[in-house]
Amino acid sequence: MKTILPPKGMRDFLPREKEIRERVMDIILDEYEKSGFNQIETSMIENLENLTNSNSGENTKLIYKILKRGEKFKPTENSREDDLSDLALRFDLTLPLSRYYANNRNELPTVFKSLQTGYSFRAERPGKGRYRAFKQCDVDIIGDETNIAEIELLSTVYKTFDRIGLKGQVIKINDRRFLKELITSAGFAVESCEDVAISLDKLDKIGEEGVKKELLKKDYAENHIDNLLAKLFEIKEAGFSVVEEIDKASYDNLNKIITVLKKTYPDLKLEFDPTLVRGMGYYTGTIYEIFYGDAKGAIGGGGRYDNMIERLSGTSAPACGISIGYERLLAIVLENDLVKLDTKNIALFYEDKDDFVEVLKLADTLRKDYDKVSTILKKKKFGKQIARLKAEGFDYFVSYDEDKVEIKES
Amino acid sequence: MKTILPPKGMRDFLPREKEIRERVMDIILDEYEKSGFNQIETSMIENLENLTNSNSGENTKLIYKILKRGEKFKPTENSREDDLSDLALRFDLTLPLSRYYANNRNELPTVFKSLQTGYSFRAERPGKGRYRAFKQCDVDIIGDETNIAEIELLSTVYKTFDRIGLKGQVIKINDRRFLKELITSAGFAVESCEDVAISLDKLDKIGEEGVKKELLKKDYAENHIDNLLAKLFEIKEAGFSVVEEIDKASYDNLNKIITVLKKTYPDLKLEFDPTLVRGMGYYTGTIYEIFYGDAKGAIGGGGRYDNMIERLSGTSAPACGISIGYERLLAIVLENDLVKLDTKNIALFYEDKDDFVEVLKLADTLRKDYDKVSTILKKKKFGKQIARLKAEGFDYFVSYDEDKVEIKES
Repeated sequence: MKTILPPKGMRDFLPREKEIRERVMDIILDEYEKSGFNQIETSMIENLENLTNSNSGENTKLIYKILKRGEKFKPTENSREDDLSDLALRFDLTLPLSRYYANNRNELPTVFKSLQTGYSFRAERPGKGRYRAFKQCDVDIIGDETNIAEIELLSTVYKTFDRIGLKGQVIKINDRRFLKELITSAGFAVESCEDVAISLDKLDKIGEEGVKKELLKKDYAENHIDNLLAKLFEIKEAGFSVVEEIDKASYDNLNKIITVLKKTYPDLKLEFDPTLVRGMGYYTGTIYEIFYGDAKGAIGGGGRYDNMIERLSGTSAPACGISIGYERLLAIVLENDLVKLDTKNIALFYEDKDDFVEVLKLADTLRKDYDKVSTILKKKKFGKQIARLKAEGFDYFVSYDEDKVEIKES
Repeated sequence: MKTILPPKGMRDFLPREKEIRERVMDIILDEYEKSGFNQIETSMIENLENLTNSNSGENTKLIYKILKRGEKFKPTENSREDDLSDLALRFDLTLPLSRYYANNRNELPTVFKSLQTGYSFRAERPGKGRYRAFKQCDVDIIGDETNIAEIELLSTVYKTFDRIGLKGQVIKINDRRFLKELITSAGFAVESCEDVAISLDKLDKIGEEGVKKELLKKDYAENHIDNLLAKLFEIKEAGFSVVEEIDKASYDNLNKIITVLKKTYPDLKLEFDPTLVRGMGYYTGTIYEIFYGDAKGAIGGGGRYDNMIERLSGTSAPACGISIGYERLLAIVLENDLVKLDTKNIALFYEDKDDFVEVLKLADTLRKDYDKVSTILKKKKFGKQIARLKAEGFDYFVSYDEDKVEIKES
């Protein structure tokens, strides 16, 4: 017998879970579009070269590569993966967006507010809330170099999470330029900053010791590493105000974002966190992540990446984005029962002897007033059948009858 | 410079086209759910073996295969594609649905009305309306061996197309058992029926001559081929009534479906077509396709496939489905301008000097009454800016002002 499970790390969804997923997605799309973002779509399959050259940190090691076909497929003992593949599945929505913008910029507004949702794929070790195929929901603003972009993005995602019912979300914020300042003044070379940042990002996963080990393995000097880690925790202790002395530009940037958002949304929890790094090399300024309750890992995150479009297309465009981790969000929604399904579903029973033309006509009439009308063959064990249908979400029942339609509520 | 185009046969979508795609999908989902179908989702990546063994005709030659990773990746000069791959992208939604049902049948209703939409992938030569990544929208009824299933499926899709605005759609219908009868009585062996059917399916693409050539190449006897083709066209000429003498079971089946649907929907055009075949080997009974105006190729199609779930899981379940060719449908919608976008979009102008807290608050207030409110930095060439925004779909304009809010309609 063949396997009937989906491949490892991939999932199928039963009707109830799928319905909740769709409801949450509807809220996200509605809130994002209302806030001025334009939905776009990019290809799930990318040219492999674009992905491997994207400066996307660990993600480039997790790419699902697609086999070359026909005459291009010429394996030898020495073939490397990239000899046998030229296409691959995207691992996020940011690189595709940058390619998209570079390709279509003449057709898009000068300041382009983009909304994109869809699946990405990473060959990760699957775990709780971590899948190999997962949905993301991204909003990005391209063409605005001011931090009004950051403010709008965080405002939109805050309102969206709030509407879904995630009360008490916490946004953590930092600036890559400030981190760069810290890293260089700890003794590292400027060129190492992105690489050091990628290791630092693992602080909450592998701890201080783990990060130190990884940086030593990368051949960085122990005293630089110790300097950096000590300074980071010192600043975390001291609080946001000390940033002003270390890096005025980062301070002014973060200060404006924090002030405007807190004034607009008094309930919003927004905290400076010097240990927040984000795992991608491409960030150039503000970075942020959103957390909820005890849930492990961020449910959203992003930042400013002003150089990516230039690297792809030769023409520069400032850009800033935020991505919702839809799978983690859904885990929270399901665990806390945040979305109630309240459709009016009706089961319309027919028997073999009935004229199905009349049954269909009655069904079509009922469909004007109910969310779902399903025609169902009446069984002999009718009581048991009704019980089962109630469990499936049917609240109203009607048996086909030529003379009168009587709807019973369960 | 790297390529900024999506890979060959793949597409990105600009905001306007994406918005129309979403609107059409909303109608499809609404109409399908109203009619009693339950939305599910299956993995886009399948175990390669399941796909290659699915009896899916030409489609199995067009599979995008994913490279094995890590230690499993051991290429040699003699490696075949399937030695270097164990995962692949699905090429339709029917095989995944059958696997899904086999895996989850205990959690699903006895008669399961399934609704599934999503991308499939085929490494075809791209052409007008033919892409390598394309969306399908499938409804299937599993567990109903009567042709009430066919009637419900065709009724649902007819109503959906009608609501989208495709007036004058034509449904063509046939029965694989009838075709089998014709094929065997023309002289072919019973075991050849599926293979002969796959070639016959190309009649409208490569013509009678082309089909004959292909069947000769497959080593079938010329007189059998001539018999079959002659008989087919003879029946097409004579009309549905002659089917009764040749195969009573097919006649009764098709007759009930045609009669009930025509009585229920007097405007529905539903025609028996003996040359309708469908390209997959797995069909066992009724088959149908839907056409619209001069559009080349069907915009929907499907049929009964009673053996597929048994082949996958060892336990049998009758099944019947219909798939909308979403990309062809969208081409028709765009060409005939069938979907009007009528959202109320407002551009809220601010200047650098403004307090952005107040701008954001005003925007959030306006969002209660408008579909989209975008905050936009006012430019010096304001007239030009307004003209551009109108072209982007903004109909209302308001400049931030502490004292009064005045909304101007364009």
